[in-house]
Amino acid sequence: MDVDAPPDEQPDPVVNRWHPDVPPAATIEPGEKVRIECLDWTGNQVKNDDSANDIRDIRLDPNHHLSGPFEVEGAEPGDMLVIDILDLGPFPDNEWGFTGIFELDNGGGFLTDHFPEARKTIWDVDGVMTHSRHIEDVRFPGCVHPGIVGTAPSHELLEEWNEREQALIERGPEAETAVNHETREDDPPLALPPEPNEVLLGDMDDEDVEEAAEEAARTIPPRENAGNCDIKNLGRGSRVYLPVFVDGANFITGDLHFSQGDGEITFCGAIEIAGWIDMRVDVIKDGMERLGTDYAMFKPGYQDPDFSNYVVFEGYSVDEDGTQHYKNANVGMRRACLDAIEYLTNFGYTREQAYILLSTVPVESRIAGIVDLPNTCVTVSVPNEAFDIDIDPDTLTDEYDSSDKGDVAKPS
Amino acid sequence: MDVDAPPDEQPDPVVNRWHPDVPPAATIEPGEKVRIECLDWTGNQVKNDDSANDIRDIRLDPNHHLSGPFEVEGAEPGDMLVIDILDLGPFPDNEWGFTGIFELDNGGGFLTDHFPEARKTIWDVDGVMTHSRHIEDVRFPGCVHPGIVGTAPSHELLEEWNEREQALIERGPEAETAVNHETREDDPPLALPPEPNEVLLGDMDDEDVEEAAEEAARTIPPRENAGNCDIKNLGRGSRVYLPVFVDGANFITGDLHFSQGDGEITFCGAIEIAGWIDMRVDVIKDGMERLGTDYAMFKPGYQDPDFSNYVVFEGYSVDEDGTQHYKNANVGMRRACLDAIEYLTNFGYTREQAYILLSTVPVESRIAGIVDLPNTCVTVSVPNEAFDIDIDPDTLTDEYDSSDKGDVAKPS
Amino acid sequence: MDVDAPPDEQPDPVVNRWHPDVPPAATIEPGEKVRIECLDWTGNQVKNDDSANDIRDIRLDPNHHLSGPFEVEGAEPGDMLVIDILDLGPFPDNEWGFTGIFELDNGGGFLTDHFPEARKTIWDVDGVMTHSRHIEDVRFPGCVHPGIVGTAPSHELLEEWNEREQALIERGPEAETAVNHETREDDPPLALPPEPNEVLLGDMDDEDVEEAAEEAARTIPPRENAGNCDIKNLGRGSRVYLPVFVDGANFITGDLHFSQGDGEITFCGAIEIAGWIDMRVDVIKDGMERLGTDYAMFKPGYQDPDFSNYVVFEGYSVDEDGTQHYKNANVGMRRACLDAIEYLTNFGYTREQAYILLSTVPVESRIAGIVDLPNTCVTVSVPNEAFDIDIDPDTLTDEYDSSDKGDVAKPS
Amino acid sequence: MDVDAPPDEQPDPVVNRWHPDVPPAATIEPGEKVRIECLDWTGNQVKNDDSANDIRDIRLDPNHHLSGPFEVEGAEPGDMLVIDILDLGPFPDNEWGFTGIFELDNGGGFLTDHFPEARKTIWDVDGVMTHSRHIEDVRFPGCVHPGIVGTAPSHELLEEWNEREQALIERGPEAETAVNHETREDDPPLALPPEPNEVLLGDMDDEDVEEAAEEAARTIPPRENAGNCDIKNLGRGSRVYLPVFVDGANFITGDLHFSQGDGEITFCGAIEIAGWIDMRVDVIKDGMERLGTDYAMFKPGYQDPDFSNYVVFEGYSVDEDGTQHYKNANVGMRRACLDAIEYLTNFGYTREQAYILLSTVPVESRIAGIVDLPNTCVTVSVPNEAFDIDIDPDTLTDEYDSSDKGDVAKPS
Repeated sequence: MDVDAPPDEQPDPVVNRWHPDVPPAATIEPGEKVRIECLDWTGNQVKNDDSANDIRDIRLDPNHHLSGPFEVEGAEPGDMLVIDILDLGPFPDNEWGFTGIFELDNGGGFLTDHFPEARKTIWDVDGVMTHSRHIEDVRFPGCVHPGIVGTAPSHELLEEWNEREQALIERGPEAETAVNHETREDDPPLALPPEPNEVLLGDMDDEDVEEAAEEAARTIPPRENAGNCDIKNLGRGSRVYLPVFVDGANFITGDLHFSQGDGEITFCGAIEIAGWIDMRVDVIKDGMERLGTDYAMFKPGYQDPDFSNYVVFEGYSVDEDGTQHYKNANVGMRRACLDAIEYLTNFGYTREQAYILLSTVPVESRIAGIVDLPNTCVTVSVPNEAFDIDIDPDTLTDEYDSSDKGDVAKPS
Repeated sequence: MDVDAPPDEQPDPVVNRWHPDVPPAATIEPGEKVRIECLDWTGNQVKNDDSANDIRDIRLDPNHHLSGPFEVEGAEPGDMLVIDILDLGPFPDNEWGFTGIFELDNGGGFLTDHFPEARKTIWDVDGVMTHSRHIEDVRFPGCVHPGIVGTAPSHELLEEWNEREQALIERGPEAETAVNHETREDDPPLALPPEPNEVLLGDMDDEDVEEAAEEAARTIPPRENAGNCDIKNLGRGSRVYLPVFVDGANFITGDLHFSQGDGEITFCGAIEIAGWIDMRVDVIKDGMERLGTDYAMFKPGYQDPDFSNYVVFEGYSVDEDGTQHYKNANVGMRRACLDAIEYLTNFGYTREQAYILLSTVPVESRIAGIVDLPNTCVTVSVPNEAFDIDIDPDTLTDEYDSSDKGDVAKPS
Repeated sequence: MDVDAPPDEQPDPVVNRWHPDVPPAATIEPGEKVRIECLDWTGNQVKNDDSANDIRDIRLDPNHHLSGPFEVEGAEPGDMLVIDILDLGPFPDNEWGFTGIFELDNGGGFLTDHFPEARKTIWDVDGVMTHSRHIEDVRFPGCVHPGIVGTAPSHELLEEWNEREQALIERGPEAETAVNHETREDDPPLALPPEPNEVLLGDMDDEDVEEAAEEAARTIPPRENAGNCDIKNLGRGSRVYLPVFVDGANFITGDLHFSQGDGEITFCGAIEIAGWIDMRVDVIKDGMERLGTDYAMFKPGYQDPDFSNYVVFEGYSVDEDGTQHYKNANVGMRRACLDAIEYLTNFGYTREQAYILLSTVPVESRIAGIVDLPNTCVTVSVPNEAFDIDIDPDTLTDEYDSSDKGDVAKPS
Repeated sequence: MDVDAPPDEQPDPVVNRWHPDVPPAATIEPGEKVRIECLDWTGNQVKNDDSANDIRDIRLDPNHHLSGPFEVEGAEPGDMLVIDILDLGPFPDNEWGFTGIFELDNGGGFLTDHFPEARKTIWDVDGVMTHSRHIEDVRFPGCVHPGIVGTAPSHELLEEWNEREQALIERGPEAETAVNHETREDDPPLALPPEPNEVLLGDMDDEDVEEAAEEAARTIPPRENAGNCDIKNLGRGSRVYLPVFVDGANFITGDLHFSQGDGEITFCGAIEIAGWIDMRVDVIKDGMERLGTDYAMFKPGYQDPDFSNYVVFEGYSVDEDGTQHYKNANVGMRRACLDAIEYLTNFGYTREQAYILLSTVPVESRIAGIVDLPNTCVTVSVPNEAFDIDIDPDTLTDEYDSSDKGDVAKPS
């Protein structure tokens, strides 16, 4: 891929929709190791500079810009694809990434009501470490992973996706967006139906693209085929099991993240990079039956950052305006995030910086208790080791004196 | 406490509601270390036997059976209480715990539509390890923690709780219970308003109890004062910061868990024990302002089980009947849990056993991506190390041969 | 056991030598869970006070004061004993431990030439945490473990021990003590032959004791039966496999440590406690043949302190006087320890405090490279998380400013 | 570097001795990030084939083949160099490594008496994972690190090295090689004095090389300047502090390891690779005084393989022929290694394969207790997670039945 060329002038095929008929970009034998190059998910729309104009003006229709599809010889519906994530990273001469806060009315994010304006942070990638000229006293090892890896849907499955997502749109926004506390002038979209604008389908003939674009599914949500699951633990050394829905499996990948906190809350929320990924690909015949599942599953690797010193925030299902919700994990997470942001300002960070930190540092967000009606408790754990300063609560209250430590007992 | 006596005949005060006027059971000096004894949360209703009748017929009104309140000298509203969880465990002559699946119409649980009938599992506690005669080939170190620790609400805060929870009840069940996929004959409760039946308020005078019982808050949900947060990481060595709302803080604790998976999904869902907890208690004057928060927060200890070999399941916001929801983390978690349960049956476990395993083994449930509309991705990570057998997916497909490993190269 | 009574007036049998004929203190059925009470290893010689006189004047002949032997039904020579370490800790009303630096001429220690005088530190045990009034700004979770657990030797094995250790004594001190850099006035002992003074052999008849005392082995060194292996990772949840040499196995345990650094370098070097230990004991018939070993082995538990932020020191086989040794790991470790001690004085600790910290905090000492003649490299890793202050080298050189963190990019 | 060309025909300077006067290959500004390419330590002597002839016939005089020296602007004696290990790996088109067992009389190794013949294993590097066609059922993430990084010695320091190592040679082999149990026909070397044969000193003029070669120090041992410390934890994300002895520091690096067990026991013992390493280099002025040390030290990264399931072997200071040694850690490690090797043959591995596994898998070798005369206890911990099979001792004794797991209690 070429990070200086537009997506439709790349040397390799680029895909930005799910459709069963996209012709394979290449064929892989079971057991083969492949290197795949990927644009950043926006297709080079964001620049390494100090203005957030590109984030503010982002064109969302053509996302994500992905690589593939890759056909795996012998894979058939009912099989499971086994993908070992061997290694990945930014292109050697392009070692940087970006994180954006999208505008309220152009993408938004998890806390868009609190952060309605576009912001951007550029990160230098330093091998396994990263730091940013836009946020000081933070330097940490990333949990590098692909935001997206998924198999092509069958025609039947594609139809099912389109139907159920359209049904949500038709049910209307009242109940469910209220739960997510989004209060834009125009209702935010509930789902993203097929969007024929700016469709890229790899090597498909132009006339076929025109037809396919009417039904091809957007790549924004994760679904049965995995896709945009944005799981920070899908890193180096992990093994992914993906259900196969079409002959050849025709998997697609991209949206590489140098690091991400659970939730990827600012939406353009990981440290987004263009780069390469090495995979070994294999097939388990009749894998869905043998594993007893038709869902994606995985085993994480052993090389995610091994932090052990966390500061943890707790959120419940009561909105910031005091409204009680019913066992709502989303609200719980929002409250925990808002509290964490407030806390980080104790150390000199702006609220925008703190929001971006929660979205990029390997933060753990767990559903702690989901049965204690009406409040679900969600915890957001921020690793102290990611900071050059000490963010322990005790630093806010204690005065340590390093000159006198008492003494051990001597003979009397 | 006496595990053979009813809750209202205990040697120490028992409390099962939040109310500012409950008189302290004892007074603690800042910096003091205390041992507190606790009934199991049901107040001895569940027996160490092989019948689930007690779970089926559980009386829910008097729960949780907690210890306290404990007054901390000098604590005032605006301060933060600092509680070090030093150690905890079952009573030495009572080293067992229980996990229940509540009946659909008497408590229910996260997957109550799939598991409507009462079930029970008894666990032997073996020091830091546990195993069960009701589920074979599982033996693991628990993440022992108190399900509940919280400060007394002020009158104003109590009123706020009651108002907002009543408002939820009055908004009605349609939208929000649908999201949580609960389809009981009678609508399940949305929240639990004050319930005067079987109220225990420690050493409060009987006539005062009668009045307080009308407004005292149930202990089921976690709230601003922490309370029933059911956080599995609040274990040995952790340090908890709790906002103070009344003079003396008047904190209450109990609902000890020998182990729990994130979510505590079967509701009576941890390995529930009666036992003791050692705490060191201190006060940060003006702590809310100095920490910049009026929420509970904590630092975990360094001795939670350190597993590293997980099998991970992914769930999205599409219900098991195919209905698409809007970025709903609860639905994502439900789908991941259902998939994990199905998977565990590959190894000979019944679905009920698998449901209980997810609720008791230190399972990690993370909100992986919360912005990819309309699907939120939740992962449920099951530690292989908790099992005596190998639950790696590869064991379902591979045949390993331990007799011939090839050989190294020799001089030719 | 009674921490206020002398060892020979205890309610339970006390043993301080290895001998095949000591009668069992109790019999255990395979699969049974037992609680064993233990004196501290010195048999109550050390007091919780601020004078090191007791350490200086310690009587070494009667150590260690251990509990047992315990006969396991059906165990025979050739079997392996399986002991699950379920839990352990100090007696509830005696929650403290001690660490001593022994005098050069009464016990010494790993760095006795540098620390020839007696010193003592008292530790408060706070559940899983500990801290000391003698060393400030240190508070950490211990890696609680038994210093000693071992099976009784057969007569043949006992004879072998005595012969080989006597042979070492007769070879003389020149070469090997030089390597260990010990320069006492009188040559230090190379090994400890049977010592009839102050022998305790449990319930053995007095006349038999007199005879057995002439040949019974000291408990100081670890040997084939495990014994005093002082492995800090033998903690809660670990499973130990011990070879059986006599009918009934007749294992002995004690020398409980609340925490220890690798090496236990001050000799009286762990946080030494009196207390209890819960074990589950089982037998693998023909275990030596089935496991293919006649040595002790084990699997650690999952609840040792999970630190991740270490400062690491490197030592080589060159003595502090500049003498080059040949791939000598002991010298490598000594140099790394001396460097770590010097480093810790940067933060206000005395050299004695630092020496004791290396011996008690869960420090990792690894043989990094053992083939690079003539220098073996040993690393000593000190966990930053054990300190209330930050011992990162960067704190000695950086000035962090927490008031200004720059800012994220905005639209221009 | 060119993996197909001999070391003296490389495009970049190659160095295989320590000497203060080697001219810098390049100059680095403080704070600069650099990529350095490195030959494997043997300088391309070992091929990716199935014969161990190249290992048997290895020429040892020209090792190690290193890159540099690199001058750091402004660095002066007394400063500390700070090197961040950002990332490293094999060259993209050369993703393999080798491990050798050296012949008894041509290099040997830690257990050379037991493994006197040359052997070789080739490893495929698969991103962060590795496996070998010569050892089946093993696949693990490596702990990639540079075996060597060190600063140039001053003339004084070089002289000190040469003197003390020569003194060792002159003291003669008796005592110290006996301790290390090496019984070759000719006495093995005790140290490696300057060897003028096959010296490479980068860009130094040929006549200067001839003179310098007479005194330049071999790179085999680690010393005050760090050098060949072979520390497996010096991986991605670690920060190394090196004392500066000459103006410009003139550091050298190489001997890249894809993985290594503690001790690197087969001598050619890591997974040896040719490749690249990215570093960021900085200087602490007066660092020796400010850090209070003139030794190398470091902080490990957070991305070493995070294993938690180990099988641990224990060794004591008694030789395999029954000779008792005095607190000798080397003997302890040897016995633990020999026991581990024997144990691994239970699973079908040959003894040579097991020896190589201990040397390459991230095995932990700890000095557990070093004061319990006359036996020092060393533990060798083998991570079960590195194997595709289960090497838990319980698999050798249990029969697990996956078809029936009992059942939970139901209402009666």
